[in-house]
Amino acid sequence: MTLVVQKFGGTSVADPERLRRVAARVQRHVAAGERVAVVVSAMAGHTNQLVAWVDELGGSTADRAEYDVVVASGEQVTSGLLAVALQAIGVKARSFMGWQVPVATDTAHGKARIASIEREAILAALDRGEVAVVPGFQGVTAEGRITTLGRGGSDTSAVALAAALGAARCDIFTDVDGVYTTDPRIVPRARKLERITFEEMLEMASLGAKVLQTRSVALAMQYGVPVQVLSSFEDKPGTFVVADDLMMEDQLVSGITYSRDEAKVTLIGVRDQPGVAAAIFGPLAQANVNVDMIVQSVSPDGARTDLTFTVTEADLARAHDVLAPIAAELGCERVDADKDVVKVSVVGVGMRSHAGVAHQMFRVLADKGINIRAISTSEIKISVLIPEEYTELAIRALHTAYGLDAED
Amino acid sequence: MTLVVQKFGGTSVADPERLRRVAARVQRHVAAGERVAVVVSAMAGHTNQLVAWVDELGGSTADRAEYDVVVASGEQVTSGLLAVALQAIGVKARSFMGWQVPVATDTAHGKARIASIEREAILAALDRGEVAVVPGFQGVTAEGRITTLGRGGSDTSAVALAAALGAARCDIFTDVDGVYTTDPRIVPRARKLERITFEEMLEMASLGAKVLQTRSVALAMQYGVPVQVLSSFEDKPGTFVVADDLMMEDQLVSGITYSRDEAKVTLIGVRDQPGVAAAIFGPLAQANVNVDMIVQSVSPDGARTDLTFTVTEADLARAHDVLAPIAAELGCERVDADKDVVKVSVVGVGMRSHAGVAHQMFRVLADKGINIRAISTSEIKISVLIPEEYTELAIRALHTAYGLDAED
Repeated sequence: MTLVVQKFGGTSVADPERLRRVAARVQRHVAAGERVAVVVSAMAGHTNQLVAWVDELGGSTADRAEYDVVVASGEQVTSGLLAVALQAIGVKARSFMGWQVPVATDTAHGKARIASIEREAILAALDRGEVAVVPGFQGVTAEGRITTLGRGGSDTSAVALAAALGAARCDIFTDVDGVYTTDPRIVPRARKLERITFEEMLEMASLGAKVLQTRSVALAMQYGVPVQVLSSFEDKPGTFVVADDLMMEDQLVSGITYSRDEAKVTLIGVRDQPGVAAAIFGPLAQANVNVDMIVQSVSPDGARTDLTFTVTEADLARAHDVLAPIAAELGCERVDADKDVVKVSVVGVGMRSHAGVAHQMFRVLADKGINIRAISTSEIKISVLIPEEYTELAIRALHTAYGLDAED
Repeated sequence: MTLVVQKFGGTSVADPERLRRVAARVQRHVAAGERVAVVVSAMAGHTNQLVAWVDELGGSTADRAEYDVVVASGEQVTSGLLAVALQAIGVKARSFMGWQVPVATDTAHGKARIASIEREAILAALDRGEVAVVPGFQGVTAEGRITTLGRGGSDTSAVALAAALGAARCDIFTDVDGVYTTDPRIVPRARKLERITFEEMLEMASLGAKVLQTRSVALAMQYGVPVQVLSSFEDKPGTFVVADDLMMEDQLVSGITYSRDEAKVTLIGVRDQPGVAAAIFGPLAQANVNVDMIVQSVSPDGARTDLTFTVTEADLARAHDVLAPIAAELGCERVDADKDVVKVSVVGVGMRSHAGVAHQMFRVLADKGINIRAISTSEIKISVLIPEEYTELAIRALHTAYGLDAED
């Protein structure tokens, strides 16, 4: 019998009525002959309440070990409730807390990493014909203390459990029905992808397509666990995230993503001398400001240079504070900042073997009169920074140009 | 250093502000040189919400093992939060879940009984100068599944922990400041008792003075754990519940309690023949109707008898349903029921060695023109059933007669 792990997020288990729907969903898989282990998040909003209490009492320095004791309770509740809901419709089920499985983690409370998952207890339950319900997000240290994996950790729990159990696949039920070629709100003819590779998904996830946690995708890639992203509210297939060699078609570009959460910083008239980049980016890194795209343009006389880079909008003020004294030291004329920019990216494993993807992107944008402010590339992705007002125009043009539009 | 266990109930930990006050309270004991283990309930109302969810999904037949997983989370939350609140004011602290201590119980989920408590982990924490925070109400089976002790189980957890640790005393913080000679709302001159014996407390608790769970008092008596009942909102001594031989004074009567939750049932004109009582009380017991006081009065000719007994008001309808067919069979003239009755009880270990307590009670009530409908006695208690309208009059008269009134 096929063994599957199914993960339901916070909005899918937000109240008893939705838990009943989840139970019915699981029941259909059991009836179809699958052995099912379910991973659940806390009820939507519940974790925030628990975190707020810890913050109120202990502030940002609150003991992370006790924080974990408090917030791990949210998934405990939904695990027990789902087991009850399953039993109520005649499906044998029992819950296993992280410490009962056990899901062994390191001691980095609040952001623990899974070391190993014991499969025996869960497999024994599945062999007895039970559905095993496991709280996501939580584990236990070697000393027996409760840990949590950090926000979004439930996806990671599900993938890790699937890997440990040797599951045929890991279904991630969420509030979208799959991964799209781009944002359907911008491009009505965006298509749901049947398949996407782990690497593409990683690029998409880190670029802001918030369907799957980056960490869980990396883990799935590492262990070769096929993941399916699908809707918990509709009963239809979603998108499979699979290894490269399982891709049937040879699609050049899989999707167009974008991130509005970008700010462009330009240091104008920096003295062009060795060590400048280190003098600028070292302090930013120390201040925990993530720098993404970097462009350096040399002035005609070669003595001065303009340095442009992007940070998230949230980091912009901090970047300014860090840069002010440094810019003065480097004899920089002024520091410009611009929040009205967007990063648009074209993602596809096909790029590896096909030249011309970047060229096509630049030409399409030029044809629409869109100025590119910065460019960055990886093996399977090209990103450009453009003025934010061109977001929709650029995405629609690229979506069409790469042949991604759905047919009528 | 004196080792104490302190238990805080649901109203004492109802929100972060109150948890902060509990932390400050514990801090004072630590500063005074005591080693403290704290037992906490769930936030007031939280357990009810969790139970409601289980009921909604699984009804009354919901798996008690999963019920325990869900409801035990409430105490987990307050344990972690209190540890955080203690640390925030510089008190070293850490939480221990029931399965971490462990608090070993049987497998009677939802109403488990504590088998044993390991003291090593907690003592080690206390020896490191930490406050140990333990969730009340929960334990773990030999197979490692979460159990709960049933409603009010946190008092029992605290007393059991105190016994296991060999604590000097167990402080039960609650929303009253001690045990009174009677209800102060009825008798303004009711006195707070400095001391009361376990047995007296047991009689008071089972008679409706809802200060301590009966089960926890019985456990304290069994292990000789001195218990102090005191207010979590005021900083003053409460009432000590102690063994018989620790009573200094020789108080004849310690308190007057009452219960309005009584209903009187009278079967009139029952044929007086062997087996009648069994025919009546057997089916009532089978229907889970608890019968308390029983009075049988024989008619002048000896052929017929009236049988009176009391049940709780909640059980009255059920008692009626059970009795209807039986009464007909026994040739009973009619069945009367009366909810307008109250049980008033005089409690005191002094009764054991002093005659005349009952006589004095009957005389005081007779002087006030109060008719006694039924009487029951134990070694340290006399209860009478009287018309409810006389409740206050009877209690005040008895309180004065037994010398319990506070001096001005």
